[in-house]
Amino acid sequence: MAQDKQPRRPKAEPPKGFRDYFGAEVTERKAMLDAIAEVYQRYGFDPLETSAVETVEALGKFLPDVDRPNEGVFGWQDEDQDWLALRYDLTAPLARVAAQYRNDLPTPYRRYAMGPVWRNEKPGPGRFRQFYQCDADTVGSASVAADAEICAMLSDAFEVVGIPRGDYVVKVNNRKVLNGVMEVAGVLDPSDPTRFEAERGIVLRAIDKLDRLGDAGVRALLGDGRRDDSGDFTKGAGLSGEQAEVVVGFTSARRDTGAATVARLRELVGASVMGAEGVAELEQMAALLDAQGYGADRIILDPGVVRGLGYYTGPVYEAELTFEILDDKGRKRQFGSVAGGGRYDDLVKRFTGQSVPATGVSIGVDRLLAALRAKGRTTGASAGPVVVTVMDRDRMADYFAMAGELRAAGIRAEVYLGNPKQFGNQLKYADKRASPVAVIQGGNEAAAGTVILKDLILGAKIAENATLEEWKDRPAQVEIPRADLVAAVRKMLG
Amino acid sequence: MAQDKQPRRPKAEPPKGFRDYFGAEVTERKAMLDAIAEVYQRYGFDPLETSAVETVEALGKFLPDVDRPNEGVFGWQDEDQDWLALRYDLTAPLARVAAQYRNDLPTPYRRYAMGPVWRNEKPGPGRFRQFYQCDADTVGSASVAADAEICAMLSDAFEVVGIPRGDYVVKVNNRKVLNGVMEVAGVLDPSDPTRFEAERGIVLRAIDKLDRLGDAGVRALLGDGRRDDSGDFTKGAGLSGEQAEVVVGFTSARRDTGAATVARLRELVGASVMGAEGVAELEQMAALLDAQGYGADRIILDPGVVRGLGYYTGPVYEAELTFEILDDKGRKRQFGSVAGGGRYDDLVKRFTGQSVPATGVSIGVDRLLAALRAKGRTTGASAGPVVVTVMDRDRMADYFAMAGELRAAGIRAEVYLGNPKQFGNQLKYADKRASPVAVIQGGNEAAAGTVILKDLILGAKIAENATLEEWKDRPAQVEIPRADLVAAVRKMLG
Repeated sequence: MAQDKQPRRPKAEPPKGFRDYFGAEVTERKAMLDAIAEVYQRYGFDPLETSAVETVEALGKFLPDVDRPNEGVFGWQDEDQDWLALRYDLTAPLARVAAQYRNDLPTPYRRYAMGPVWRNEKPGPGRFRQFYQCDADTVGSASVAADAEICAMLSDAFEVVGIPRGDYVVKVNNRKVLNGVMEVAGVLDPSDPTRFEAERGIVLRAIDKLDRLGDAGVRALLGDGRRDDSGDFTKGAGLSGEQAEVVVGFTSARRDTGAATVARLRELVGASVMGAEGVAELEQMAALLDAQGYGADRIILDPGVVRGLGYYTGPVYEAELTFEILDDKGRKRQFGSVAGGGRYDDLVKRFTGQSVPATGVSIGVDRLLAALRAKGRTTGASAGPVVVTVMDRDRMADYFAMAGELRAAGIRAEVYLGNPKQFGNQLKYADKRASPVAVIQGGNEAAAGTVILKDLILGAKIAENATLEEWKDRPAQVEIPRADLVAAVRKMLG
Repeated sequence: MAQDKQPRRPKAEPPKGFRDYFGAEVTERKAMLDAIAEVYQRYGFDPLETSAVETVEALGKFLPDVDRPNEGVFGWQDEDQDWLALRYDLTAPLARVAAQYRNDLPTPYRRYAMGPVWRNEKPGPGRFRQFYQCDADTVGSASVAADAEICAMLSDAFEVVGIPRGDYVVKVNNRKVLNGVMEVAGVLDPSDPTRFEAERGIVLRAIDKLDRLGDAGVRALLGDGRRDDSGDFTKGAGLSGEQAEVVVGFTSARRDTGAATVARLRELVGASVMGAEGVAELEQMAALLDAQGYGADRIILDPGVVRGLGYYTGPVYEAELTFEILDDKGRKRQFGSVAGGGRYDDLVKRFTGQSVPATGVSIGVDRLLAALRAKGRTTGASAGPVVVTVMDRDRMADYFAMAGELRAAGIRAEVYLGNPKQFGNQLKYADKRASPVAVIQGGNEAAAGTVILKDLILGAKIAENATLEEWKDRPAQVEIPRADLVAAVRKMLG
């Protein structure tokens, strides 16, 4: 390797906020997504792969979530001065496709999509500008059966990837019930839906902060307002104590059974027509799911689910993993949310002017993968190949034949292709490759028609703890007839 | 669906040159790439997934191919005014990774990568600005054994995806042999490699056009120059007839056996040291491949392979599919090239100043997929789901239970979720979904404990040709006990 003089060299690094994925990081995510895709396929969902690039016009430029209006996209102008951008989610491209192919696609259209999305945000620890999403949506069905189906499918997906029943729960809520509650609380007038918009915005943001601010903080925001620890004042929705009670009652309406929760919600929405509609939808979903055996051990009604209520128009669902992990400070806490979704009915309207009912879920791919690792479902390490070492440069063909035989038997194997002079480097290489077995054949062995197999996993364990009783009788190295190569390697792999 | 008034609606279409992939288009490509990945894994190659975005500096902005210097990238400036761009291939990111992680990666580093790349080119028919690439490279091995391995692996990959032996051939050439030929032809001076650079450029471009211009056209370009049909004159390399003979002799040096081809090349390169090195490399590759059973039915030496000779530095390989297809005009022609690669030794040098030997291959994903379709290996159609129709809106739970039972038995199934009022629409929907079987249970059937199964594939065939003898005895519709649902559907699916 010759040293060159060059004035200025490019930096060998990805742009800020982007990263590379190696080996098992790629295969484990792929295995997880493949398993999920199989479930989605079996439910009749079809894959859709749109390209990374959309027109900014079609994308709508900003996230459809009022709480994060400033999250940007990566955009540029093409040769015709039109603005193009990388997709920031998989829903906006679905909206474009649903509009573009509305005469060709089946109605309803069930589709799933898996792939990277890009966000032009400030990168942070564990926060990247490219990450995977995994979505399933049903476009064109107004029936809550479509929502129930997606909740059931999500449960199946968790179990297929290795989250056992009891370690996850899908919580279901409904935006219409909240609307009914708002009506009772006096901040929604069915005869003039534009009235009290500001107040409803405050209510939505307040209950969205329930986790963080607690009951008292939310009540303050529902009332006159709240002064935080820094002294900053946030104006409240101006609800009376009684009105606020109804809203807070909504978020804590969960009871032991779905039927009891429904009964409680029915009380809360009082005479509101929309509220009653929402309660009926929840009841229907629960009935459909119960009939299929998706009981409270998997899917529950929980009006405490408030995330996304501002965005969705009907049923809202969120999946949480309930097993405990240790957080950064060593404290136990529930793993938490890994997927969420709901019904949104204006998906295609931007393009065609026609409202099309739709419902869908998005799985947080990195979160779910982290959960699988936390549960020990995936190891984070890939099985390295058997390494056939090179003792004699002139007999490469022999070494290649060995690797070929191993591969033909389904065993991952490769010949060392670096400079073979220093044998120690070959074993270091095998170590770096996490190789389980090294195959060695020098001139003596070749003459004797044998090969030496070195058990590198055992070798590593002995190096760690040489007195380990269990390894005592297992030889770390054996010489075997060349003809027995495949069988002996297989035996050593165990 | 209410009609809305809106001043200006976004166009529901992807940017020019981009497209969407639906259903089987996604799953068939995925199945092909999965099969290839399994072969690559077994050879000890590790997956690498870099992000779509690189700094323009790391990317090198332009394609590393002298013949296409102006193919652009999609680029933009980030918040720090640095230029970012979408990767245009998978080699440039590999170079960046190999440099960035050079102390952590094993040497040699075998990696494969599969994913989309983006080119800011004029789109045309069948020519898209985002397309898949599938690469395998070995970085850090100077041995031609690495090149031989990749040729063998490529052969295995073809057979695994369904291109039978005899329908493909991997052709191997070597840039050093061409350099030797250039030396003999008087346009390469080993003591001053910068001399005759312009002439060598003309020679490279001339032989690259062999297919199009034929022997006479290439000879004209090697000599004084060539006037094309339009009257335009292209200056030649200025070789004498004798010198040109050596170059043309090189491209037609292929003989019946590898040994005879090697002998012929040895004549052609005469006393050139580099030429002799190239011939020896070809000989070694052939020996290694022969010893593993990769004979002339799979991999051949062919100095007629000239594509990429200007870019690569040692062995060059190109894979062709040899079976015939009909072209646009209905004429038979060979399917042609689907993969190519070779050795390139300056991959990492841009970043570190150190030359690192590397060799690799890229499969044209869309081309190979088209070949599989041409061979009938994939149908282009996906198996639609069994559709459980909805006769009675109040019994959705029953219909969901049916779909659930079918899915639990591994059968793709779904409940119709559109408006169930018009039963005809449900059957039209099933047709659009390419559904093989419709399940029907109205009130009478429910009371009798039965369901009706409609064989939609048979139905379609009967509709096409009602007199078909073979269908005569097969009923297109059966009524079966509800309890036999899964068994009866399975039987109908055949």
